[in-house]
Amino acid sequence: MEEAHGRSGVSVTNDLVAEVVAQQLESMLSVGNYDGVKLLLAPVQPVDVAEAVGCLPRTLQALAFRLLGKDEAIEVYEYLEPAIQQSLLERLRSNEVLELVEEMSPDDRVRLLDELPAKVVRRLLVELSPAERRVTAQLLGYAPETAGRLMTTEYIDLKEFQTASQALSIVRRRARETETIYSLYVTDGQRHLTGILSLRDLVTADPSDCIGDVMTREVVSVGTDTDQEEVARAIQRYDFLAVPVVDRERRLVGIVTVDDVIDVIEQEATRDLYAAGAVEAGDEDDYFQSNLFTVARRRVVWLAVLVIANGFTTQVIAMNDAVLREVVMLAAFIPLLIGTGGNVGAQSSTVVIRGLSTQRIQPLGPWRAVVREALAGALLGLLMLLVVVPFAWWRGDGPLVGMAVGISLLAITTLAATAGAALPLLFNRMGLDPALMSAPFITTATDVAGVFIYLKTAEWLLLHAPQLLEATSISTHLLASLAF
Amino acid sequence: MEEAHGRSGVSVTNDLVAEVVAQQLESMLSVGNYDGVKLLLAPVQPVDVAEAVGCLPRTLQALAFRLLGKDEAIEVYEYLEPAIQQSLLERLRSNEVLELVEEMSPDDRVRLLDELPAKVVRRLLVELSPAERRVTAQLLGYAPETAGRLMTTEYIDLKEFQTASQALSIVRRRARETETIYSLYVTDGQRHLTGILSLRDLVTADPSDCIGDVMTREVVSVGTDTDQEEVARAIQRYDFLAVPVVDRERRLVGIVTVDDVIDVIEQEATRDLYAAGAVEAGDEDDYFQSNLFTVARRRVVWLAVLVIANGFTTQVIAMNDAVLREVVMLAAFIPLLIGTGGNVGAQSSTVVIRGLSTQRIQPLGPWRAVVREALAGALLGLLMLLVVVPFAWWRGDGPLVGMAVGISLLAITTLAATAGAALPLLFNRMGLDPALMSAPFITTATDVAGVFIYLKTAEWLLLHAPQLLEATSISTHLLASLAF
Repeated sequence: MEEAHGRSGVSVTNDLVAEVVAQQLESMLSVGNYDGVKLLLAPVQPVDVAEAVGCLPRTLQALAFRLLGKDEAIEVYEYLEPAIQQSLLERLRSNEVLELVEEMSPDDRVRLLDELPAKVVRRLLVELSPAERRVTAQLLGYAPETAGRLMTTEYIDLKEFQTASQALSIVRRRARETETIYSLYVTDGQRHLTGILSLRDLVTADPSDCIGDVMTREVVSVGTDTDQEEVARAIQRYDFLAVPVVDRERRLVGIVTVDDVIDVIEQEATRDLYAAGAVEAGDEDDYFQSNLFTVARRRVVWLAVLVIANGFTTQVIAMNDAVLREVVMLAAFIPLLIGTGGNVGAQSSTVVIRGLSTQRIQPLGPWRAVVREALAGALLGLLMLLVVVPFAWWRGDGPLVGMAVGISLLAITTLAATAGAALPLLFNRMGLDPALMSAPFITTATDVAGVFIYLKTAEWLLLHAPQLLEATSISTHLLASLAF
Repeated sequence: MEEAHGRSGVSVTNDLVAEVVAQQLESMLSVGNYDGVKLLLAPVQPVDVAEAVGCLPRTLQALAFRLLGKDEAIEVYEYLEPAIQQSLLERLRSNEVLELVEEMSPDDRVRLLDELPAKVVRRLLVELSPAERRVTAQLLGYAPETAGRLMTTEYIDLKEFQTASQALSIVRRRARETETIYSLYVTDGQRHLTGILSLRDLVTADPSDCIGDVMTREVVSVGTDTDQEEVARAIQRYDFLAVPVVDRERRLVGIVTVDDVIDVIEQEATRDLYAAGAVEAGDEDDYFQSNLFTVARRRVVWLAVLVIANGFTTQVIAMNDAVLREVVMLAAFIPLLIGTGGNVGAQSSTVVIRGLSTQRIQPLGPWRAVVREALAGALLGLLMLLVVVPFAWWRGDGPLVGMAVGISLLAITTLAATAGAALPLLFNRMGLDPALMSAPFITTATDVAGVFIYLKTAEWLLLHAPQLLEATSISTHLLASLAF
């Protein structure tokens, strides 16, 4: 990308910005050049200031923070990592802390309090103004990852009898203190949500028009207990900038804005990806901030489950060792068979889990999805046969291994694709998270079945077509006599 | 979620809405109740109307579409699936088609033309008005998945010398035709972007203030060739509603809005997830719309690559069959060893690939990330030993199998975690997509190494500590004599 030049602005989206700013900041702070700091930070976006402050040594963070203007300090603080927010709280004077927490928007304040020790939360809550304390306690009362926890209570509500020009002056007056002025909400005397209008509707309306005539009565809203993923999907589907949150009596209690929803979408995608990789997703998505033991803890449980599942595969092989003793070469194809079965199953579970998550599987329906995956598994198995059977025939020294590998490969890919599609759908139907049935589990489950099918097929062939083994021995002897 | 009641609105986000509407729509259309259709669709969101129209039989789609008001028809059309957009184009009269395509926003029009056959595109382009033709050709000239392709040219640009009240009347006049009125852009005589202001800034400014004094000169912008993922990240990072797109001379050429960016974020997450499941991501993310052969085609290539890679594992086992002939029980632990190695490697590659994608790995840096993963792999291997070695000792009838499994498990988990972290980082450094080094590839690659390490360890133990085999035989005999 082209570099910025002249005073016309900074270009995006360089992660070095924060680093460069942090270096300059540190050297200016250490020589006490506070005016320089103010000049340096004035044109920088709050999120970049937050990252730069985060890069500073802890001792300088409070100093840098105090040099920010009051409004900017609040905005920067909201962007800081939770650990730095906490350490700043300890370093600032208690009146500074109180002012900061008092002025934060309610949703960001709740996110901060979620991270703090209960003792500190209680102390802070007591010191807040009654209005802010009430709204904070209300938001903290909703379950995590619901609309109630995600929403802010800073929105503009209008009345149906107001005129457009009255409404516009309300918007002007409240513009600085609310989260958004672009979505406006209309409520009746009991705070029931009766309509919605955008600032676009308002500025294009005739100044004497009544709000009741300009607003849209068909409002898409979510409940306080709606899951955050569903809230995100509503905003995404309808291209909204915000969605209103109503309580059980349909009273308007808050709004969720699109910027918070983008973070939810990223968080949910990370969770799905981690599930696909058998890693437990943390609450705060900070894998790279956590220490080695947290890393191991978030992986050991799934790993242990998978190891135990793999133990069953070992059991199946151990219990069928007679056929292996007869034809050792059968063992050489076990990884290929279960690997291919695992990969086909992983593909099916990946598309189905993602389809459930983005709801794109809906038009097809669960039954047709499973049948289609089963057919795809069989088709893919057939295609793989073209490569695998000749290889197994040659490398396995004859027709026995070739045929056993071929028959079981087809069975394994069909089974794996069916299980890969059906198990996440079944989990979803049972109200469980379908991502639990992601690739590693499908893979490990099909391992057991795959090895069983393979060894039983080979055993059956040995019993019912012993000439195959003979042919194998003959070709081995032939090869051996040719070689010497 | 609570149901809507009374006239105060519909609640979200029920996928049945479209289905129910589609059923009513179909029965009304088939009896010719067109006024009923208009009443039915009036309160429904355009995206829901589009889904309902999509559920109708093809023959009724054009009929339903013609009953929509002109503005709504355009909005609904933009939400339709590409296949339905195309079939509608064929069923509508050519003047209807032209009016529709002429009135679409430029970015949605480009997305439509991308899907149409070149012949149809040429014919449509010729018939467009010169202004719309010029802007469409310009957007089509940018590479897919760049800011230039994603942007719209419908924005409001102001001049520094205009007053706030002049600007507000420009906004009022142009509100209906532009994509957003909430972000306003300031350009000089040569269309260079010199500043930005929000509608919030404008409505709170004094009416006589100059735009040059109200606007922010520090503009975050992207270039026309900036990758769409980077555009999405900029909007997400700075909580923007839109980001301006400038050409190499820093002239403003368009804007990208937050609603398009959400779709990009979802699309990129799907791509990462599909890569993690060894499924090729399609251009339009329509896995569940495509037929069985497209499904197979999108999976067969990766699958074939993995089968060939698995063939190497077979080769390694075949070339070390002497040790297997000696102790057949060794074969029973191959799936467990390579399965566990694969899972550890998949975990590491998952977190690293996601960390690269969300840029959360940045503060840690590549070297420390690899070292940390290697240590985590070793630690996890040690933890697994506690379960696996006693099991292998017992099930493998003695110390030889137990020791071989234990030693190689530790080596395999460490190696897998190191490769799982290092390969995506290496690919990223080389400018390739790190997602190519996702779980299935790491798994298959570590299979080969894992089997080699395991069989060589067993061979070494047999050669250098033959008493281990004797101990194994003795314990086998002991068990056998106890059993009979």
